[in-house]
Amino acid sequence: MKLSEISKLFNGIIEGDSDIEITGVKGLEDAQENDITYLASSKYRHKLKDCKAGAIIVKEKIDDFSGSQLIVENPPLVFARLLQLFYVKPHPYRGISKEAIVSPSSCIGENVTIYPFCFVDEEVNIGDNTVIYPFTYIGRDTTIGADCIIYPNVTIREGTQIGNRVIIHSGSVIGADGFGYIFHNGRHVKIPQVGKVVIEDDVEIGACTAIDRATTGKTVIGRGSKIDNLVQIAHNVRIGNDCIIVAQVGIAGSSSLGPGCILAGQVGIADHAEIEGGTIITAQSGVMPGKTQRGIFSGTPIMPHREWLKANAIFQKLPEIYKKLKELEEKINKKEGKE
Amino acid sequence: MKLSEISKLFNGIIEGDSDIEITGVKGLEDAQENDITYLASSKYRHKLKDCKAGAIIVKEKIDDFSGSQLIVENPPLVFARLLQLFYVKPHPYRGISKEAIVSPSSCIGENVTIYPFCFVDEEVNIGDNTVIYPFTYIGRDTTIGADCIIYPNVTIREGTQIGNRVIIHSGSVIGADGFGYIFHNGRHVKIPQVGKVVIEDDVEIGACTAIDRATTGKTVIGRGSKIDNLVQIAHNVRIGNDCIIVAQVGIAGSSSLGPGCILAGQVGIADHAEIEGGTIITAQSGVMPGKTQRGIFSGTPIMPHREWLKANAIFQKLPEIYKKLKELEEKINKKEGKE
Amino acid sequence: MKLSEISKLFNGIIEGDSDIEITGVKGLEDAQENDITYLASSKYRHKLKDCKAGAIIVKEKIDDFSGSQLIVENPPLVFARLLQLFYVKPHPYRGISKEAIVSPSSCIGENVTIYPFCFVDEEVNIGDNTVIYPFTYIGRDTTIGADCIIYPNVTIREGTQIGNRVIIHSGSVIGADGFGYIFHNGRHVKIPQVGKVVIEDDVEIGACTAIDRATTGKTVIGRGSKIDNLVQIAHNVRIGNDCIIVAQVGIAGSSSLGPGCILAGQVGIADHAEIEGGTIITAQSGVMPGKTQRGIFSGTPIMPHREWLKANAIFQKLPEIYKKLKELEEKINKKEGKE
Repeated sequence: MKLSEISKLFNGIIEGDSDIEITGVKGLEDAQENDITYLASSKYRHKLKDCKAGAIIVKEKIDDFSGSQLIVENPPLVFARLLQLFYVKPHPYRGISKEAIVSPSSCIGENVTIYPFCFVDEEVNIGDNTVIYPFTYIGRDTTIGADCIIYPNVTIREGTQIGNRVIIHSGSVIGADGFGYIFHNGRHVKIPQVGKVVIEDDVEIGACTAIDRATTGKTVIGRGSKIDNLVQIAHNVRIGNDCIIVAQVGIAGSSSLGPGCILAGQVGIADHAEIEGGTIITAQSGVMPGKTQRGIFSGTPIMPHREWLKANAIFQKLPEIYKKLKELEEKINKKEGKE
Repeated sequence: MKLSEISKLFNGIIEGDSDIEITGVKGLEDAQENDITYLASSKYRHKLKDCKAGAIIVKEKIDDFSGSQLIVENPPLVFARLLQLFYVKPHPYRGISKEAIVSPSSCIGENVTIYPFCFVDEEVNIGDNTVIYPFTYIGRDTTIGADCIIYPNVTIREGTQIGNRVIIHSGSVIGADGFGYIFHNGRHVKIPQVGKVVIEDDVEIGACTAIDRATTGKTVIGRGSKIDNLVQIAHNVRIGNDCIIVAQVGIAGSSSLGPGCILAGQVGIADHAEIEGGTIITAQSGVMPGKTQRGIFSGTPIMPHREWLKANAIFQKLPEIYKKLKELEEKINKKEGKE
Repeated sequence: MKLSEISKLFNGIIEGDSDIEITGVKGLEDAQENDITYLASSKYRHKLKDCKAGAIIVKEKIDDFSGSQLIVENPPLVFARLLQLFYVKPHPYRGISKEAIVSPSSCIGENVTIYPFCFVDEEVNIGDNTVIYPFTYIGRDTTIGADCIIYPNVTIREGTQIGNRVIIHSGSVIGADGFGYIFHNGRHVKIPQVGKVVIEDDVEIGACTAIDRATTGKTVIGRGSKIDNLVQIAHNVRIGNDCIIVAQVGIAGSSSLGPGCILAGQVGIADHAEIEGGTIITAQSGVMPGKTQRGIFSGTPIMPHREWLKANAIFQKLPEIYKKLKELEEKINKKEGKE
């Protein structure tokens, strides 16, 4: 595809040779002369001099690149669209395998692929065009919308509700029992977990992530939210729309996130925390129960990010502080002795 | 079921209408007029005014609720028992599927359900009434007791011993090799992991949890202990009876917990740590090798919880402390200069 | 096997009875009179007096053990070799099960075992002697080398390249999509993840670990590196040779480790971090983006380990420091008032 044709698709402006043939879309370091690449951040600008790409997607004309430049408003978006255009093929349609077990009481839409070694229990609904990979278990009374992709080795327990265009990666478990016990006569008695999980449209769930069913009522993942790998979402949690939850985050029972929150990797949220929409929690931080107003927070327990940065900068000086304090104390005590 | 009938089951006392028909058991916010609910903590008392439940389970009579009150000694226990009574159905008996592969040398008890797509290797014993869901692998020489539930996509490696009434949720892996190598001639040489895992009666194991087999000897999960999702339990760990291990905790090799310990979410325990029974470690804390005596601890490395709270409260003031210290130092130095 | 025969195998020297018959290899606490054991660390020397082992592997003669002593240069290595010798049997050869689904376009080596309920998609290559356990999914265009072991319930997505003698434990997911989105018009737009995962020779990957495919290019796990359970490795990460990555570590996108790094449990590495070879990061620490030079580091953000130890020791004294500072301030202010 000529660079000029690509440019037309995205209302771009070309600096340099517009006739160059583009055959691939690659990262800065891997790109060759017929590839187009993009500069994710000005931080990597120093890598441009060694970059062999034939063309680069930029927001504004740059000086330090010898190939063609495709100037567009939103370079990462154009990069994503080009990856889609060049590489992404639809999941092949394979129909419902005879080597899958699908309950006759289930209702399967048009153009659905169910691979061999899937188990679909009673009264399940699956929408059009959805693809279910091998070793997927779908419990009774579950609904899965249209255009979903369920990768291999996923467990979806009974009564789960999944919207349209949802992607669930391998190894994830939707709707396992929440973790609830009562201590009685020296033993932990299980609280039955009879609620469900609701996953709204356009949600993506990473690999080996666990989203527990509610005790009663529902655990909800809001529309468009994206959840990474190895995340723990406990019973009765409510995630608002368009949240980003990075790998290894854990959210304890009954906590809620407003829309557009970002939780960085390994963050822990205690139970019954309420986090206002648009809040960012930086990696490894710990949020206590109660309300957190919109902001950027860090630390365990969290504090405003800038304050955490300042406090942390001093943390390293604690031995010095302690020593100085002792010295001052001595000086003053000596003086007092003299007086 | 009339409230009066429920009350009889649990030796309760009714305040208000005892004839009300109860058809569901719900959380405070979801309950409707024919539902019974309960107040988990006085912290949520403000939610009572909007609660539409027909009845509530309480320990003592309360003023701010307009419906009937069921007064019992242990409200959460009664709530759990009612959830059980109203909602929990036994796992349907389905026998041993012809689409499962069960070694003829295995010994399967009465009334066992083995779903399609299970693989049961040689010399496995499975006790009465146990239910094994699809995509479960059970390695040779494994014993599983009676009344167990093994959810889909569970791996139980060879030689594992599992007691009665054990529940294992989806995605979990019991008996994978412990993580042990010797660095020799510039390479990591694997130490064979030839021990096993023993899971005692009444244990529940969450989703995507890994419990490694011992190097030699055994990794033990004590009777009645409850383990949440995404927990790591390394080789030769010994968990006492009735412990609670919350999601994403990691326990390194050869460490031990006495009975009744509670590890909150994301706690890390180093190798060769010995934690006395009844100890509580708060979320995200890190326990070093060696003995920890009974108590409540926080931080990395841990310190008594109250001291951690105090130290943390000051942590935020570090920049202020540093500034003040510099000022005092200057003042004193100035004075000294004058003298 | 007589102790004298064992001694010959490893060029050892025997102190005490060399005729003793050794029938097992056990840990210090489990060993009985016909077992050989070893002292992993002088820290456990106090356990020797209760040790019933008939023989012990040591580096130098010890006084406090009553049985025979096998003196060798590298006791843990000899222990590992003996475990291998006494206990480890090859995985039984079972051929390619008729109850597995293997695409006819795949190319399977000599002496390969593929268990029932495996799914091997198109154009897959599997090398000689490799063993694939049940419920394993191998996506199209994947290559797996010789002498590999893939345990049950593993997902290997399309296009993955796996070397020789690689072990992958149950529940792990290789090649799920990296976590990348562009925020556009109020929604998170998925960046297609079209790269792959390359796992070099002699790598071992624990249970429930996720290694994401690259956005473009590849995510690489270097030769001989060992990865524990529940580890997250994001897209485009590069792990050097012979690294040790302990359980629940998370490494964010595009970060790299040089050869021989050790990341202890629950460590978090931010995106675009570059960690020099031979670096050790202690448990629960957090590494920020940018370069980290060879060393031992702790804390979030990391600092040199010894400084962290010192600062942490003072951390507990923060309330005392704060109090003293206030007192000094008051004293000085009082004095100033007097003057």
